[in-house]
Order: sequence, then C-alpha cells, then structure tokens
Amino acid sequence: MIRIINTGGTFNKRYDPIAGTLVVPADDRAVEAALASVGGNVEIAITGTIYKDSLEMEEADRAALCEEVAGAEEDAVVIIHGTDTMDRSARALAAWVQVAGKKRVVLTGAMVPFSIDPVEATANLISAVTAVEYLDPGVYVAMHGLVLPHDEITKNRELGLFERIG
Amino acid sequence: MIRIINTGGTFNKRYDPIAGTLVVPADDRAVEAALASVGGNVEIAITGTIYKDSLEMEEADRAALCEEVAGAEEDAVVIIHGTDTMDRSARALAAWVQVAGKKRVVLTGAMVPFSIDPVEATANLISAVTAVEYLDPGVYVAMHGLVLPHDEITKNRELGLFERIG
Amino acid sequence: MIRIINTGGTFNKRYDPIAGTLVVPADDRAVEAALASVGGNVEIAITGTIYKDSLEMEEADRAALCEEVAGAEEDAVVIIHGTDTMDRSARALAAWVQVAGKKRVVLTGAMVPFSIDPVEATANLISAVTAVEYLDPGVYVAMHGLVLPHDEITKNRELGLFERIG
Amino acid sequence: MIRIINTGGTFNKRYDPIAGTLVVPADDRAVEAALASVGGNVEIAITGTIYKDSLEMEEADRAALCEEVAGAEEDAVVIIHGTDTMDRSARALAAWVQVAGKKRVVLTGAMVPFSIDPVEATANLISAVTAVEYLDPGVYVAMHGLVLPHDEITKNRELGLFERIG
Repeated sequence: MIRIINTGGTFNKRYDPIAGTLVVPADDRAVEAALASVGGNVEIAITGTIYKDSLEMEEADRAALCEEVAGAEEDAVVIIHGTDTMDRSARALAAWVQVAGKKRVVLTGAMVPFSIDPVEATANLISAVTAVEYLDPGVYVAMHGLVLPHDEITKNRELGLFERIG
Repeated sequence: MIRIINTGGTFNKRYDPIAGTLVVPADDRAVEAALASVGGNVEIAITGTIYKDSLEMEEADRAALCEEVAGAEEDAVVIIHGTDTMDRSARALAAWVQVAGKKRVVLTGAMVPFSIDPVEATANLISAVTAVEYLDPGVYVAMHGLVLPHDEITKNRELGLFERIG
Repeated sequence: MIRIINTGGTFNKRYDPIAGTLVVPADDRAVEAALASVGGNVEIAITGTIYKDSLEMEEADRAALCEEVAGAEEDAVVIIHGTDTMDRSARALAAWVQVAGKKRVVLTGAMVPFSIDPVEATANLISAVTAVEYLDPGVYVAMHGLVLPHDEITKNRELGLFERIG
Repeated sequence: MIRIINTGGTFNKRYDPIAGTLVVPADDRAVEAALASVGGNVEIAITGTIYKDSLEMEEADRAALCEEVAGAEEDAVVIIHGTDTMDRSARALAAWVQVAGKKRVVLTGAMVPFSIDPVEATANLISAVTAVEYLDPGVYVAMHGLVLPHDEITKNRELGLFERIG
C-alpha cells in the first residue's frame, strides 16, 4: 500500500475562468486522473491536505505535513508538493525520518499543471510511485527523470528543471 | 544509459485524416513527447524499428527484436510494443536473456494511443524507465502500475487491463 | 431555435481501447462538448439518430434523415454527418427542400474526431450554427471555413479538405 | 479578405513554467491554430499588436487599435481582445466607424485560453469570422454563441458569460 499525500502546488493547479487565473483547488482530481490507469493494480490511498502553492506554505504547514507522514500506516509515502519549497519540506521530513524511521518518502510535483499538459506531471508522479517500492528508508525527490536522496537534487530556477547536485 | 527500442503498437498510433483511421507511423514522436521532461537528466537512446501493430508482428520481427536487444551496448533496455502479443515477444526475449545474460529488459506499451490521451502511455513508459534501474537481469512487463517478471502478468482482454497472474 | 440532427460520422468518433479502434458511439457527447460555451445563449435542440460512419449509410438512412428534417418544427437545421457521403445526403435533402420549403439546412462534420482534436470539429459546427441564422432557404455545406450551397462545394479526398467547386 | 487584429487577452494566454503564471505572448500562435482548418479556404490576414491583458489596455492602446482598423484595407475586421474591457474598445471603435464607414468590425475573445482548452476560443473566433461576412457595417461582439451589435451584449462577470442586454 502506498500513501499519497497531496499538498497542492502547480501539479494540481486549474484555470478559473471567472478569476482569470490558475488556482490550487481543494481536491485531488489531478492526482486521481494521473493514476487512473494504475489504480486497480496498485493499492494507493490519497490524503488531500494544505492545498497551497508551495510559496505560501508556512512552518505550521510543514509541521502538519510531518505529522501526516508520521501518522501514516504505510511505509511507502509519496508527497505531491509545489516545487519552490520542496527542498525545505524535504529537509523537515528528513530530520524526522532519520530519527523515527523506516519510512520511504518521495516528494514529487510538476512545473506545468496536469490540467494544462498532463505529460510532465504524470511522468513525475509515476516515477515516484514506481521508485518508492525499491528504495531504502529515507527522503527522496522524484522529478524530471531523477529519483535521488533529497539533498542530491535541486531546482534550477532558470531552466525550470530539477538537476542532480554536483 | 537506457536503450529504448520502439517497435510500434498502440502507444504510437496517430490518426490519419485522409485514411480516416489510426496508423502506426514510422517515427518515434510519441516516445519523444512522453520523455520530453526527462530527457536532459536520464541518458536515453531510442532505436525505432518494425513499427507494427503487434497483431501483425511475425516471427521474423521477433527474431529481429531479439537481435536488436542482443546487440545493444546498454544493459538496461525498454521495449515499446503492442499489447496483443507482448507476451510472445517477452518469451522469445526471455529464452535468449536466460542464456546470454545480464540485461534487464522491460516491455511496455499502451491501450490508448499517446496522441489521443497521453496519460496511460506516459505512465506505462515512465514506470518501465524508472524500474529498469532497480531490477535484476531478466525480462519484465511494465503495464498499468505493475512491473513484474513477464510470466507473472497477463492482459485481461475483456477489461483492457494488464493484471498479475494468480 | 436551431435543430441539430446528429447522424454520426468522424465528428463523433471515439477510441475504444478494448476494440483498439475508433467507433461511432450512439450518443451526442462530442456535439454537446463542442457547444458547451454556446448552450445558454442559443436555443439549440439535438436529435441523435443513425449514428453511422457515412460510408455505411444506406438509402433508408437518407430517407429517414429527410423525414427527420421534414418533421422538425424548426426552420434552421444543422446536420452533423460523415464527410464521405455528405454530398449524397445533401442532394437527397435538396430535392425535398426545393419542393417543400422554407427550411435552411446546413450539413457539417469533421475530418478529425472531436475526441482526438476538437479544433476542426468545433470550427465546422460553429460556422454552421452561426451561418444558419443568415442564410436563405436551401441546403448548404459548412466545412473548413466555407459555407456554400451544397452543389458549390466538394471534398478533395487527396487533401482531406472541402473546397469550392470551380 | 478578412483582417484579424490580435490584441492579446485571455484567448492568447499561455503557461510560462519558469514564471509559474499565464502570460500574453507577443505572437499569434493561438489564433493561427484556431484557424488551421480554415486557412486555405478563407482569405485571412493577421495583424498582431498590443498583446495585452485587456485590464492593462490604456487609452493610447485603444487609439492605436482604432487607427489599425481605420488603416486596414479590408472592410471585414475581426478583433481578438480581452473580455474585461472589450466593451470600452467597442465603443471607441463605434464612434469612429459611425463617422467613417462601411467597415464591419467584430470583437471576440475567450474566457479560457486556447492553450488550456481550445473549444470556447475556437467557437468564439469562428462565429466572428463566419458572421462578419453577413453583417451590415457597424461594431459587433461575437461571444458565447451571440453575434450582436456591441451595445446589446455584456459580460456577466459572476457567470463568466456574455449575455444579451435586456
């Protein structure tokens, strides 16, 4: 069983025609659509929470996320998260996992909303869901074809691409 | 480095407005599009060949596919293949791999063409590309969330879904 | 009030993953989706019937279509039809309209299914729905930017494009 | 010959993954894509200009737009414009057309970017392009199935829908 914790971020954004902008909706529709062809075969449970652009995430949100992971019955946890502060949440989670655990936690997200073009978002999520079965305990980031320990990968903000550090 | 061998199948089909039908084009456009967000980070080389609906694959095609895999410099090989005879090609490859080798071969494909809805095709391909890094030598099928030794997975033709055997 | 008579054709085709082919479904989902942004403002009623690839249309189908148009309360009638025999249905309708009437009948359709790429199908349908308000009684074809009396337009089968005759 | 003047607005917006927002690009790609199936048959020339969200349009932009229309050789002019101040540009154009002319000017746009979902944008543009051939001189708005003199139609901001006035 894999626990997916959906915190929002670009992955989930949808266009609101009345507001004329992209918003993070308080639902898991994008995640469910990305997993549609997988659902029956892999036991996955989704927890939706926070539902924010990661630039708006506060320390209280990160604490809540850590508690959510700590409280999950599953050892395999995939977190959908905005890309801008994914590294900060990963560090917060890593401190906790180091002490507590045997959990394999993989953070993922997207640069382009699933609702605008589903390819990158689907690719990132599926690489996280696939890799989590093979990893040792720890906190990882799965983005743009890489699945690496969280402190070996970083977002290149000019290119809009996650890259291996060093 | 991962070698992708693209043999055609539904994954690649595109609508031909003049013919009024879906055709398997002799190119790798769907594969390249599915890998667009991954390309820079993962060393992937694509070999296009055969380009057939798998119902039209002949024994000579399967022999050519085995030779293609045998000749690849890479140990990690992902094969995009029509779903209807994926099991037969997997068995042909398995006989050869058992004798020869240390190669990890993962077959994948799609029930819905990438050009019609990219989600399932992208998910299947990315699960293959992700898993191939972690697997022991052998021949596997990656479809619909499952990555299993080729003789532990089968296509349920009524549901249009690959399932674990037994 | 505009009456839309949906007879099937490529406009409506959808991919059936189990069959592995495009089928003409016995519903009006593509038409409704193409009209979603128009619905509230224009009084439109949809009649679904025949639901065939137009190559499979028989004389009995054409007779049924003429009766459907004759029986419609609305003077403005848009017919969604396969492109291959649109001209034959138009001639059948024209014979009848010439005798009977004040009806403005516009046939339209698509070379690419709405479900694969909605742009051409939407464009053709909206040009028919828009033009039908301005036309004199008669039978017209609205395809690819042209709205012309049915005997002044023809399908160029090499290009997959409707063209003005002469 | 129809002159299309593309001033930007939501119709043209595209997602910029680096900025993480929708932007009005300084090109006519959305318009060209919406017209792809029409191009060969209808003589259309596109002038790109201003390229703004209509909330950011200034009086100088409106003056420039009037000059652009005045200077066009074509009598049939379709203007792609943001929906929020479409009424103000229409009034500015109407004052000028009343004095000068025989031009038929139709403003159109979209609530949803063509790049996110092409159906509404295509429908609005095609209704404008189709109707402009049949209209008397004047300034019109073509949105959501309606093609009306500009002072008989208004944007319902709660519904995100243009409606007939009165």
